[in-house]
Amino acid sequence: MTDVARLRELCLNLPTADEAAATAVRSRQAVLTKPQGSLGRLEDIAAWLARWQRRAMPRLDQVEILVFAGNHGVVGQGVSPYPAAVTAQMVGNYAAGGAAINQIARVAGASLRVVPLMLDTPTGDFTQTAAMTPESFATAMTAGFDAVRAGTDLLCLGEMGIGNTTVAAALAAGLFGGAGADWAGRGTGIDDAGLARKIAAIDQGLARHRAALDDPLAAAACLGGRELAAILGAVIAARVHHVPVLLDGFVCSAAAAPLARLLPGGLDHTMIAHASAEAGHRRLLAALGMTPLLDLGMRLGEASGAALAVPIVRAALACHQGMASFAEAGVSDRA
Amino acid sequence: MTDVARLRELCLNLPTADEAAATAVRSRQAVLTKPQGSLGRLEDIAAWLARWQRRAMPRLDQVEILVFAGNHGVVGQGVSPYPAAVTAQMVGNYAAGGAAINQIARVAGASLRVVPLMLDTPTGDFTQTAAMTPESFATAMTAGFDAVRAGTDLLCLGEMGIGNTTVAAALAAGLFGGAGADWAGRGTGIDDAGLARKIAAIDQGLARHRAALDDPLAAAACLGGRELAAILGAVIAARVHHVPVLLDGFVCSAAAAPLARLLPGGLDHTMIAHASAEAGHRRLLAALGMTPLLDLGMRLGEASGAALAVPIVRAALACHQGMASFAEAGVSDRA
Repeated sequence: MTDVARLRELCLNLPTADEAAATAVRSRQAVLTKPQGSLGRLEDIAAWLARWQRRAMPRLDQVEILVFAGNHGVVGQGVSPYPAAVTAQMVGNYAAGGAAINQIARVAGASLRVVPLMLDTPTGDFTQTAAMTPESFATAMTAGFDAVRAGTDLLCLGEMGIGNTTVAAALAAGLFGGAGADWAGRGTGIDDAGLARKIAAIDQGLARHRAALDDPLAAAACLGGRELAAILGAVIAARVHHVPVLLDGFVCSAAAAPLARLLPGGLDHTMIAHASAEAGHRRLLAALGMTPLLDLGMRLGEASGAALAVPIVRAALACHQGMASFAEAGVSDRA
Repeated sequence: MTDVARLRELCLNLPTADEAAATAVRSRQAVLTKPQGSLGRLEDIAAWLARWQRRAMPRLDQVEILVFAGNHGVVGQGVSPYPAAVTAQMVGNYAAGGAAINQIARVAGASLRVVPLMLDTPTGDFTQTAAMTPESFATAMTAGFDAVRAGTDLLCLGEMGIGNTTVAAALAAGLFGGAGADWAGRGTGIDDAGLARKIAAIDQGLARHRAALDDPLAAAACLGGRELAAILGAVIAARVHHVPVLLDGFVCSAAAAPLARLLPGGLDHTMIAHASAEAGHRRLLAALGMTPLLDLGMRLGEASGAALAVPIVRAALACHQGMASFAEAGVSDRA
């Protein structure tokens, strides 16, 4: 499965939800010892797990975090305050257990795998050329697809890549319209001059690749990056394997967005875990019609927001599994 | 310590923060392998733990959830769709492990204690009389004060009491102004006629106790309830024992609010864990100038929102404790 035509075919024929499993969850929720609906989104989460795991009683035994890493030619335009070498250095930090995601993964009770994607060979600079050929785009998507293990109960996706908030902003603009200034933020903390360079680079990229932008996968090849393509592949694989997905922040949401443009409901098996402080995320959330679970002012990436939401999902399932019914507990229901 | 004068004296002389511990946290955060400030509120949480535990490296070994339960004379006004007997029945459900809080406590790695307060003797109906005499108010506050154990690292507070969203709305109106219609919500799910009775009862209570409302503790005695008074006592004890506090939703916030009115910064050692879907909570949050950690549409009480935020606090501390510095990890800092 390494050509774009086959990947597109897969996107257009994804498995649908198990509504019977979700209905069973709703029926059980109606008799548990709480006022109707009083657990709010925790009740929605339990139904969502059931719907996409295709199980009336979902489980969370295997929770996995996948972080994809890539490097970007557009970094040559001076869009980040950090050197590109930091991408590989941070991959080393993940392996050594020293990054934020290592700590949050432990709290979440989740395993962590990091997949570096040709870090020594950055993608093309999209201001000058396509970031990826169709072949290298398909290869990166396939790497993401193949990284997802059947039997996973919940998948958290994230990324690391110096320069990739520029890439994400360009891709979001390519998919949903608007210019660089509408989507660019300060990423890891670029100054005013750097932000101006970032906006200019995005506008150049949009102008250069205008003809490709009607096709979401072509847009992702021209303006995206390998770790974004891998996330897209992983989102598709998760749907195929009945695995609900927590998407991290801005870059991760932009990476998954082509699927929403290709297929209405294509991201229904995902939730966005955290509203990033990165400027473009709220606009992207609005474009996708998705409401994040958390809003804690984070803008780190590396799946930190997704992993942070795992205990919320665990709590939702724990309530659903463990609560007594009014009858079991001998509690009077409303008159 | 069972008279109101002594409790008031305690409120006005609470321990202050350890700013040196918080500064030490901020210094360490500046060298950890992440862009400055990119962990958002997780960084604030780590500093807050340090500031109020009075430790440069905070800990979360003993996390405790305290749920206070009480019954309310105002239930006679038809303000809840559930009978008052449900308060004691739910206390039984907590003991049996069948409630939402039992499940969320397990996910949070927190111990749970439930303290029922004279459930067979509801407070006075505040439309007719003071809810509590000064003596019974002081007794309930003291029960809450004494329930807090020194050596606790983080305390989650919550409540159970049929009718207590009416009580909380009345107390919030008494402390911050406005009428019943500004503060009353649907609680466990009252219908339109019940909501009208609820609003009318609050307005009656406000009119009857108008003379007491300039004094926050007198307002809490006249319009409050035993579980609310106990929460207030527990918040004060936590400050005395250097224990940071997660407050649950609307009722819990209203219970703690008298301390904010008595002493500027009186609630600085607390965070509000969750923005309740109960109508009055956003107005109360604005009055208190506090921003909750979570907003998941819950309106259950019983410390469910507070317990749900514990893993967020754990993640904040785990990042602070476990992350490598740029130097340790060999990661290049920004140019």
